[in-house]
This record gives sequence, structure tokens and C-alpha cells, in this order.
Amino acid sequence: MISQAHKPGEGPYTTRTPRVSAALKLQRRKERDATGRFLAEGPQAVREALAAGVVLELFITAPGPAGLAELAGGGDLPPVSVVTEEAMKALAETVTPQGIVAVCEQRDRELAEVVARRPQLVAVAVDIRDPGNAGTILRTADAAGAAAVIFAGDAVDPYNGKCVRASAGSLFHVDIVRERDIDRVLNALDGMQVFATTGRGAVDLFELEPRLAEPTAWLFGGEAHGLPEAVMARAQRVRVPIYGGAESLNLAAAAAVCLYASARAQRSSPEL
Amino acid sequence: MISQAHKPGEGPYTTRTPRVSAALKLQRRKERDATGRFLAEGPQAVREALAAGVVLELFITAPGPAGLAELAGGGDLPPVSVVTEEAMKALAETVTPQGIVAVCEQRDRELAEVVARRPQLVAVAVDIRDPGNAGTILRTADAAGAAAVIFAGDAVDPYNGKCVRASAGSLFHVDIVRERDIDRVLNALDGMQVFATTGRGAVDLFELEPRLAEPTAWLFGGEAHGLPEAVMARAQRVRVPIYGGAESLNLAAAAAVCLYASARAQRSSPEL
Repeated sequence: MISQAHKPGEGPYTTRTPRVSAALKLQRRKERDATGRFLAEGPQAVREALAAGVVLELFITAPGPAGLAELAGGGDLPPVSVVTEEAMKALAETVTPQGIVAVCEQRDRELAEVVARRPQLVAVAVDIRDPGNAGTILRTADAAGAAAVIFAGDAVDPYNGKCVRASAGSLFHVDIVRERDIDRVLNALDGMQVFATTGRGAVDLFELEPRLAEPTAWLFGGEAHGLPEAVMARAQRVRVPIYGGAESLNLAAAAAVCLYASARAQRSSPEL
Repeated sequence: MISQAHKPGEGPYTTRTPRVSAALKLQRRKERDATGRFLAEGPQAVREALAAGVVLELFITAPGPAGLAELAGGGDLPPVSVVTEEAMKALAETVTPQGIVAVCEQRDRELAEVVARRPQLVAVAVDIRDPGNAGTILRTADAAGAAAVIFAGDAVDPYNGKCVRASAGSLFHVDIVRERDIDRVLNALDGMQVFATTGRGAVDLFELEPRLAEPTAWLFGGEAHGLPEAVMARAQRVRVPIYGGAESLNLAAAAAVCLYASARAQRSSPEL
């Protein structure tokens, strides 16, 4: 993965410095879990990470992107290492690195803490395995004004590089909860109405509208098998209406339609 | 790409039969454009393709999936070739082939023909380069009841294997138009209201609602640069509201929210 060839005069070869090596290991889940750290790349993600106060360390290329202070928005900058293009290529997981990578601190929330704040809107991703889908749900939930995204069951690591990129910074805006035990999640959501999307739901999403103004948790199931029956049984099944020949929507589209239906209902003027 | 190793006793090695070789070439755009054909794989896509009457030829593995007649829904079956697992692996572009691949006929519609039918809802994908996004837009537009998806400008080939798979059969349900000249598309849509999604739109999607019941074309721009200014200038700019910290929605999520807002408005009872 790390190309060791470099032209003379390109500057010091820093791919194997202790700092870079330690950061590189964060591309693996095991190391992320062990250290509670993860990587975020590109100016947008780094700006959001700095604003959230979770950046421990920055890597930039020389000359690197101008405006580090601008990215920090006047706040303090963490330690910055200038690295070669080659080291950046190794640190960044994209084909065309954008010249800046941050080592960030994971800040999962406790389930009880999130629920205690009485959120109006929460997304629960159950058994989501695809990091792109997980990131898209984070981004869409954030856009729709959800307070938290709960990764329940056998979920992908939300700090996976692909998920961080797909979230487009939203990982730093919403509260993230990870809880393997789905029953614990459902017990904690006791004070909210809990809806599960399914093709065979009894109630049409748009018939549900007056009720969507109430505090709501949306359960979204995994790509392959949807929501487990035992989970469905504890939620109200809702059908996103299909007006054409399609059998269903994909996960990201269904989540967008449901979360925005809630957002719209929760923000409509009372007379509607 | 084609592994030639096979165990003795696996049956005839048919990867290089003329029929298989001709089908394999359809994995390349150049060949698809030249022949007007494309590949669809898996029982769901093949069932929809058979129902649409566009299947020219089928490849199955021996023993192959049971229920070919069931897939055909009682209709006539096109010529069927039984091929080795190895040939199937080459024909299918997925990691775990589902044992059936169809050679289909492309059936693009003429822009004028589609517009003449006075559709209620149309999606226009402008400069969409990612086949997964193109397929998702097809699927979401179909689910929302759109009559057609118009691929305008410098678009991906909608008959690309990844797009066909992401469309989950919807490629066979909606009318597909391809037109490089975006001005021609906008001229043809003259009788419909044309909305363009943008983060900087003047009108909030949900404020627009009473008007969404009218015949509508939604323009969705490319992943990297959005819609060209010249196109924006000819449409009404609409903002999908962002309630949280996200800068924007991704393409698939924005399309889902907009198309379903139209679908809902077009199907609401008149007194709403």
C-alpha cells in the first residue's frame, strides 16, 4: 500500500516516522477500537473536526493547504506535522489526497445521556454493514435535524474512513451511540414513538403525518435482510409508498424520505 | 478478467463460445453503444427485463436457477444457453453471481415522445458520472411514480452494469431518454414546471408544496460541480432545507426528498 519509491530532492521521506506510522495504523478497525482514535481527511472534514474540538494531531503536506488558521476558525491548532506527498498518499485513503489529514478522538455518547436530552428526532441504524450507507445516514440525519444516530447490532465502525468521508462532516455534528444490544436501545427509546420502515408496513408514511410531529426514532435495517423480526415486533411498521414498478427504495433513499417527513412535520406551523 | 483454469469434470469450458464472447463484450460501453444491447444479471433484473420484453438471450448455469418459466411469467422465453460456473463468473460483474444473465435490447425513448405523453413527474439527471448514483436515481424516480428519467449532458451510460444493478429493475420500468444537449431537454420540457435543487435556492422545498401537484421536472446535477449556471438560469431554484449542521445532502438523498415531495403532493386529496 505504501510506495517507497521517491525522487531525490522531494524532501525527507517521512512515511515511516513514528507519528505517521502510528496514524497509519488507524486505517485498521482493531487499532481504532484500541486507541479510540480515527482519521479524517480533507479540508471540510478537518474544519468540522476542529470545530468539534476532537482533533489531536494534524498532518499536512509542504507547502500544504494555505489557511490552517482559517480552518481552525480562530481556535487553537493541535500539533501539526509537515509530511511528504508520499506520506500523505499513504495516510489519505482517497485517490487524490487533499493535503490534510487529522487524527481525531472518538466521542461516542452513552445511550442514556442522549435519550435524557429528549431529542425530537433520532435515527437508529440496525446491522448496517456498508460504511458508505452508514456515512450517508449520518449526513442525511444531520441535514434533517436529528440529534443522534444510534448504530445498533452488528454495525460497521462509524469511524471507518469510508464512512467518515460519506458523512461529509456530519459525523462531527450529531451524537453517535454504538450499542450492540438492540433490546437495550429499544428499552431506552421508551419515551419516543419508534417507527420501522418496511415494504410491508401497515401504515403509509404520508397517512402518518400528523403523528410525525411527536418525538420520533426511525429504525433502518441492514442492506441485505432489513430489520430482524424481533425488532419489527417492538416498533410500528411504516411503509414508504411505492407509486411505480420498483419493489423498494434503497436504504439511503428510504432514510431520506422518512427523516425529512419527520423534519417537515416537526417544523410545520401548528395550524397545518 | 477471465480465469481459464477449470477442474476436470466441471463440464464444457464455454467462456469462449461465440455467444458468450459476444455477450462478454457488452461489459464495455463502446460495444453497448455499437450494438444497442446490454447485460442484466440476477433473477430480479431478468424477471423485470422479461416482463418488459427486451431480453434477446439468456445465460444460465447448469443446473441453473429453477423456475425459468416462472421468471418469464408465462411469456415466451428467448434462446437460453447453459454455461459453466466459470463462464457465468466472467459474464456476471458481481462477486457472487446469481446464476443468470440476460442480453437485453436498449430501448431509449425519444425526448419528444416522452413529453408528448404529458407526464406528471420526470427526473432529469444532468452530467451524472457515477453509475451507482444514476441507478439509484432510476430506482427512486420509479418508486416515486416518475414516468421518465432523462440523462442529459455528459452522463454515464445508464446501461452500465453497475447502474443496471443499482436500479434494481427500475431501468425496465421507466422511460429512459439520453440527450447530450441540455438546451434541447429544457426546450422540450416547456409545458412543465422545471425545478433545480441547489443549496442556495430561493424557495424552500416545503414552502413550494401547493405547486408541487402540477406536472414537474426535477433537475439533479452532477456529484462534483452540481448544475451548470446556464441550466440553473432556466429553472426555478429550490432549496432542500438543511436543519442541522450538514452543508448539503448527497445526490441520492436530495433526489429522494424532492421526488417524494412531488409524489405526495400529486397524490394528496384535493382538499389538502
